[in-house]
Amino acid sequence: MSKSLPSRSENYSEWYNELVKRADLAENSAVRGCMVIKPYGFSIWEKMQRALDDMFKETSHTNAYFPLFIPKSYLSKEASHVEGFAKECAVVTHYRLKNDPNGGGVIVDPEAKLEEELIVRPTSETVIWSTYKNWIQSYRDLPLLINQWANVVRWEMRTRLFLRTAEFLWQEGHTAHSSKQEAIEETEQMLEVYANFAENFMAVPVIKGIKTANERFAGAEETYCIEAMMQDGKALQAGTSHFLGQNFAKAFDVKFLNKENQQEFVWGTSWGVSTRLMGALIMAHSDDQGLVLPPKLAPIQVVIVPIFKGEEQLNNIKSKIDPIVKELRSKGVSVKFDTTDNQSPGFKFAEYELKGVPIRLAIGNRDIENGTIELARRDTKSKQSMPFEGIVDSVVNTLDEIQHAIYQKALDFRTENTHQVNTWEEFQIQIEKGGFISAHWDGTSETEEQIKELTKATIRCIPLDAKEEVGTCVYSGKPSGRRVIFARAY
Amino acid sequence: MSKSLPSRSENYSEWYNELVKRADLAENSAVRGCMVIKPYGFSIWEKMQRALDDMFKETSHTNAYFPLFIPKSYLSKEASHVEGFAKECAVVTHYRLKNDPNGGGVIVDPEAKLEEELIVRPTSETVIWSTYKNWIQSYRDLPLLINQWANVVRWEMRTRLFLRTAEFLWQEGHTAHSSKQEAIEETEQMLEVYANFAENFMAVPVIKGIKTANERFAGAEETYCIEAMMQDGKALQAGTSHFLGQNFAKAFDVKFLNKENQQEFVWGTSWGVSTRLMGALIMAHSDDQGLVLPPKLAPIQVVIVPIFKGEEQLNNIKSKIDPIVKELRSKGVSVKFDTTDNQSPGFKFAEYELKGVPIRLAIGNRDIENGTIELARRDTKSKQSMPFEGIVDSVVNTLDEIQHAIYQKALDFRTENTHQVNTWEEFQIQIEKGGFISAHWDGTSETEEQIKELTKATIRCIPLDAKEEVGTCVYSGKPSGRRVIFARAY
Repeated sequence: MSKSLPSRSENYSEWYNELVKRADLAENSAVRGCMVIKPYGFSIWEKMQRALDDMFKETSHTNAYFPLFIPKSYLSKEASHVEGFAKECAVVTHYRLKNDPNGGGVIVDPEAKLEEELIVRPTSETVIWSTYKNWIQSYRDLPLLINQWANVVRWEMRTRLFLRTAEFLWQEGHTAHSSKQEAIEETEQMLEVYANFAENFMAVPVIKGIKTANERFAGAEETYCIEAMMQDGKALQAGTSHFLGQNFAKAFDVKFLNKENQQEFVWGTSWGVSTRLMGALIMAHSDDQGLVLPPKLAPIQVVIVPIFKGEEQLNNIKSKIDPIVKELRSKGVSVKFDTTDNQSPGFKFAEYELKGVPIRLAIGNRDIENGTIELARRDTKSKQSMPFEGIVDSVVNTLDEIQHAIYQKALDFRTENTHQVNTWEEFQIQIEKGGFISAHWDGTSETEEQIKELTKATIRCIPLDAKEEVGTCVYSGKPSGRRVIFARAY
Repeated sequence: MSKSLPSRSENYSEWYNELVKRADLAENSAVRGCMVIKPYGFSIWEKMQRALDDMFKETSHTNAYFPLFIPKSYLSKEASHVEGFAKECAVVTHYRLKNDPNGGGVIVDPEAKLEEELIVRPTSETVIWSTYKNWIQSYRDLPLLINQWANVVRWEMRTRLFLRTAEFLWQEGHTAHSSKQEAIEETEQMLEVYANFAENFMAVPVIKGIKTANERFAGAEETYCIEAMMQDGKALQAGTSHFLGQNFAKAFDVKFLNKENQQEFVWGTSWGVSTRLMGALIMAHSDDQGLVLPPKLAPIQVVIVPIFKGEEQLNNIKSKIDPIVKELRSKGVSVKFDTTDNQSPGFKFAEYELKGVPIRLAIGNRDIENGTIELARRDTKSKQSMPFEGIVDSVVNTLDEIQHAIYQKALDFRTENTHQVNTWEEFQIQIEKGGFISAHWDGTSETEEQIKELTKATIRCIPLDAKEEVGTCVYSGKPSGRRVIFARAY
């Protein structure tokens, strides 16, 4: 076994970086800011994709695919959009390499310069709305409910595996509607889908809310978000759903003939989650021994480790375990029966702990004699000798329990680390301790920016369920109608 | 109904282009050579992906993800590889846009020039082998069996939807092995997987073979391929599997410690199929009325069109059809029950014909009285009044029949259009008629190039099952040991 992970309490940041590498989730590539998602990490992402894709289809969306490249002029058509993305664009300027006639090796062919530069998509609103223009003539063509799974590039200067990378994988939904109301309902519906996924699959509780104008998506009228708390008390934005109003319709002249036979601009939404969710998943649950994965997203839900000496003992165990493996699989449980003989059981235990396998079953000769098997839970690290009879049901039930327990633990942690704060003094002390702060804010960008500058805390969201409450802004003392959530964030 | 498609006999090329657009499969985007894959087209691609992905996993491969960008220097490390791809590379040179201080709008920021240019991956051997270097130390780390689903870019000058586009979607498998034999077996296994997919899912018969040196992948020792015949008699390369020897291992210095404790270069393979398969699927089966889809890849396998006047008749039909829909779905059949009232049944029939839905059921009041339902097959255009009783089984059996019938039809067509040719005169006449020519070839690149220049025909492959046969080259008259397949190709 290689040396242990740094502990979370010692160095949370190092713990995360090391865990991502050691658990074979991802690593940095030779290209600045671009990651390699390793097979084990990718298999978790695939489970996320499948679950989300099913939810998108249940809500009547279909997938499509739009170009990787965006003409520079397109990006410029929506003023705040280009403002938001121009600073971090990968730009394609040429389409050919050639051998340097002066012996400088392979160089860019200066004669193969593009007439108009192409931007590697940082997000696809512009290229999609330019396409929608041809697809939409009348209200009968609406709504258009389309999603794409794609890679996007934002040239980030400070990158971190999964959390902030120059290239990342995501899905982006882009819908078009005939009324403002319908577009807003779509925006809210997709926020619900994301919250449902975060809580029921990732086991990560989230706060649903609205972003302030400062934090809004470049080109949106309103940005809805889900915010999660990590184990260091910092916030992580886990998904966003944007009501675009008619902004992109106007930028790309997308109109429809309404039922009253009049031309009207189309209403739009866009919404996305990315491989950033991998970072959230890791940071929300894992511990100093490694990953802790919710069963619904674990590539291997159960590992069975036989404890044996020699072929005969192994065969003996196999004859008992093979039917169990089969039965578990028939119930949709993914099982690995690790019969390899080149590592000790102890080494294997540590390895599967590192990889976050929710349940480990261990069985040796003694167990067979006694009719028992050992069940170990990754989340609580509890071990229990169980009757072999009925172990399949025990496993299925325990997986369910773990899924709930992990969620509950994260929820309790968030509750413990969320504080109502009413004075600026208290705010400054509390923010250093980490966690979410629920406080009054006067609604101005100036105050928001001041607070950020002084404390590095941002307004994560105005919660959708925030109660009306008369109060005064924690910083300016001006009147406020409800509390918002402040935190330092990833 | 919009005007009918151009016919295949009149203008095969126009027929294809129009069909791709009218059936909502894909369209050109504003970016030269980049396509938009529309929802209906993408839903077929998704079915292809799912089937292939399952087959990859059954053969022990896992998915991962590698960067979109490749440092220019990487591409140059394998001599023939850069030779093959340098002429068609999209090159990223800058990472920021800014507002032109001289009022020229948004421009590329000259200060944000990359130290080393990045190439948008045309294929990922270089970036993957540079990563494998860190993953492989000893024979215990081998084999590495990895696949990725990704977009790639090759700057093609003459593009055609699905068949040849600047950006396309594909999967690329990249495996690493400890012996030459094992790598060759992997290459051959994946060719089998592709052939199996083409024949059993796409219903497209393929010839498995080996490419000549001229047509080999840039960087491979041997390229295996599957070749299909389209309805105009031209060939389409539908998938390739490359034995890379130790070429990329040597270029990126990837060695392993073998069981004899000696350092050795790793053996590699790569293999891929792309959205080009969509083109093959369309061109192999479709007719002048529209798409013909094999049931296994049809997003909608059965459409049910009620023929009714008014709510009461529709409800009457619904009460009979709803349980049928449910039963079909429970058997894994995808069904659309089109109860919309804004188009005539005739219009709907034509629309679903265009979209290639394999089975159409139509039911009206008269049918209900008689206990019948009309079943129409898209492939044969035959219609039959069937007893309503037992219709579910009839549908399931007919889907199976259609899958086989489409394959058999394509196979018969290929057989009819494959000719053994023994003289150069005959060759020149036959090649103008289209189809595959099975002829002797002297094994030299010179002859191959001469034939290509004179007739536009290329050697599609040396079939794996080609019998040894003493003969003389159809062009040079020199001795030859077996026949190869010549054709004009997409």
